Amino acid sequence: MTSSAREQYIVGVDLGGTNIAAGAMSLDGTKHLAMQSIPTNSSVGDEGVAERIVGLVQSVILDTIEHSGASRRDFVGVGIGAPGPLDRVRGVVLVAPNLGWKDFPLRDRIQERLNLPATLDNDANCATFGEWWQGSARGGRNVVGLTIGTGIGGGLILDGALYHGSSDMAGEIGHTTIDLNGRHCKCGNYGCLEAYASAPAIATRAREVLVREESDSLIPSLVNGRVEDITAQIVYAAAKKGDQVASEIVRDTAKYLGAGVANLLNIFNPDIVVLAGGVAAAGDALFVPLRAEVRRRAFSPAVRAVKIVAGELPGTAGVVGAVASFKQQHLGGV
Amino acid sequence: MTSSAREQYIVGVDLGGTNIAAGAMSLDGTKHLAMQSIPTNSSVGDEGVAERIVGLVQSVILDTIEHSGASRRDFVGVGIGAPGPLDRVRGVVLVAPNLGWKDFPLRDRIQERLNLPATLDNDANCATFGEWWQGSARGGRNVVGLTIGTGIGGGLILDGALYHGSSDMAGEIGHTTIDLNGRHCKCGNYGCLEAYASAPAIATRAREVLVREESDSLIPSLVNGRVEDITAQIVYAAAKKGDQVASEIVRDTAKYLGAGVANLLNIFNPDIVVLAGGVAAAGDALFVPLRAEVRRRAFSPAVRAVKIVAGELPGTAGVVGAVASFKQQHLGGV
Repeated sequence: MTSSAREQYIVGVDLGGTNIAAGAMSLDGTKHLAMQSIPTNSSVGDEGVAERIVGLVQSVILDTIEHSGASRRDFVGVGIGAPGPLDRVRGVVLVAPNLGWKDFPLRDRIQERLNLPATLDNDANCATFGEWWQGSARGGRNVVGLTIGTGIGGGLILDGALYHGSSDMAGEIGHTTIDLNGRHCKCGNYGCLEAYASAPAIATRAREVLVREESDSLIPSLVNGRVEDITAQIVYAAAKKGDQVASEIVRDTAKYLGAGVANLLNIFNPDIVVLAGGVAAAGDALFVPLRAEVRRRAFSPAVRAVKIVAGELPGTAGVVGAVASFKQQHLGGV
Repeated sequence: MTSSAREQYIVGVDLGGTNIAAGAMSLDGTKHLAMQSIPTNSSVGDEGVAERIVGLVQSVILDTIEHSGASRRDFVGVGIGAPGPLDRVRGVVLVAPNLGWKDFPLRDRIQERLNLPATLDNDANCATFGEWWQGSARGGRNVVGLTIGTGIGGGLILDGALYHGSSDMAGEIGHTTIDLNGRHCKCGNYGCLEAYASAPAIATRAREVLVREESDSLIPSLVNGRVEDITAQIVYAAAKKGDQVASEIVRDTAKYLGAGVANLLNIFNPDIVVLAGGVAAAGDALFVPLRAEVRRRAFSPAVRAVKIVAGELPGTAGVVGAVASFKQQHLGGV
């Protein structure tokens, strides 16, 4: 007669303004199962979105059971990554402008409906934690993560644990000033990194150049002349084809990000900085001048100590990190 | 017959470019004894300065014995705070431009000569740690310290312990960019906080205004017309007397420091920010507009979580913190 411990699973959820992604992972992180994604449909309201999350998690659990031989009791909990600011202790999303939420007790809603323990953490923290556990930040002791998309989020792993600050607000790297009299940011401040280097900021800078200057840039042809349709991805694509205007926008982005990353090196002296999100698509056209700008600005011992890398888990880092955050908060470690 | 554990002592040393301060403290931090200070005389070279430190520590030990009934064996070690960058593990000061040092094994020199265990830590870390242990940052869990003098140093206490980063370079807050095309900094970067808000930067800005504009400012009279003699302290003194030019310089300083401190709030979400060094002398004239600027720039939950305070231990924070750092590194906690 043989006896073996049954494999246990955690479900990770990544709640975004557009989509909700979820998947199951074995406790040791080696198995990823039943990754699924549905639209958020935030118009259904906080309770409605919570129901959609519950339905998605149930679907992930059923799918996992079907493909792994697991049973319902092998699922130990649900880790949720959500936009902040939030209160981890109470499990409440305090404000989420993209969702239209205010003071919503998301964790307890999910917990009650699924009868499984749940944890809540910031989405950018989860993405960084995911890259640290299973992606390009593996092995780092002190890791700074930037998630560059519609906004610029940040996550901090210090001495091997997620750092949350005194009221779960730490890591708002996108809202650090790099030009104190610079562009107005939607957070109310001036000259935030996000106002220069987020995907919409990159598109805005491209539009500004194309409207101001005559050029033979490819960009207008890629959007059928509709400059309002320019996105960061279009700029990266044009730069890859050798377009001068696009290349300059990407180099400027590298300068802005370089100033922000240099600040992080001088403050944290991390061993890894991981840049995740759409920006990874820019490849060497961004990363080569970015690393050069960081070398110009930061202290050389801090530059020598660090690797600056692109995220390796596009689309799943948030789910993987939500599982890791559940492990840290509920099981005492990852 | 009564038996009681003998009181034990640690000697703290604060090595600066101008002076070396040292004093003894009881292990529990309640007794401060024999605080002494001598000129550094860096012209005698690294070995010569190490000898001066040894002599000063011996003098502190003798003085403590004389006044407390302690004996030589009651001294358990020496904590040293020194300018960085340094390597704590090897106990080596890597580069100290103000001292003219390169790769000097200060810790072992002191250890061998005194036959006492010693530790080395960054001077700004020690000042912050001192304010946390016994000064105005007492009770903080996440503390960011700025020491504002000839330069701007920084120290980070995260979850109750000094954070050093991956190669002991963390906390170089003075060298974070707040204006990416701004003033050249002596570190090689542009727009560093230090280039705007250190004591020499404040004096430089005052000189620039006085040379450029006719004014009835008091400042020239305070330096007998020698603008090259203007210091930050003179600017603070003139501002206290209601001088318009000086007040504007102080308000500008508050704006620069406010941008830097707001960045730290959005990154760390600390419960205390402590500003130490000569800047504390500016009082409300600086702190009131500084707090206002931070409110304008940082996220309000991070602003609500924090106290921004002046250091309480001018002249001794570095010594107290060097003792605390010895305790953390050698005795496992403070």
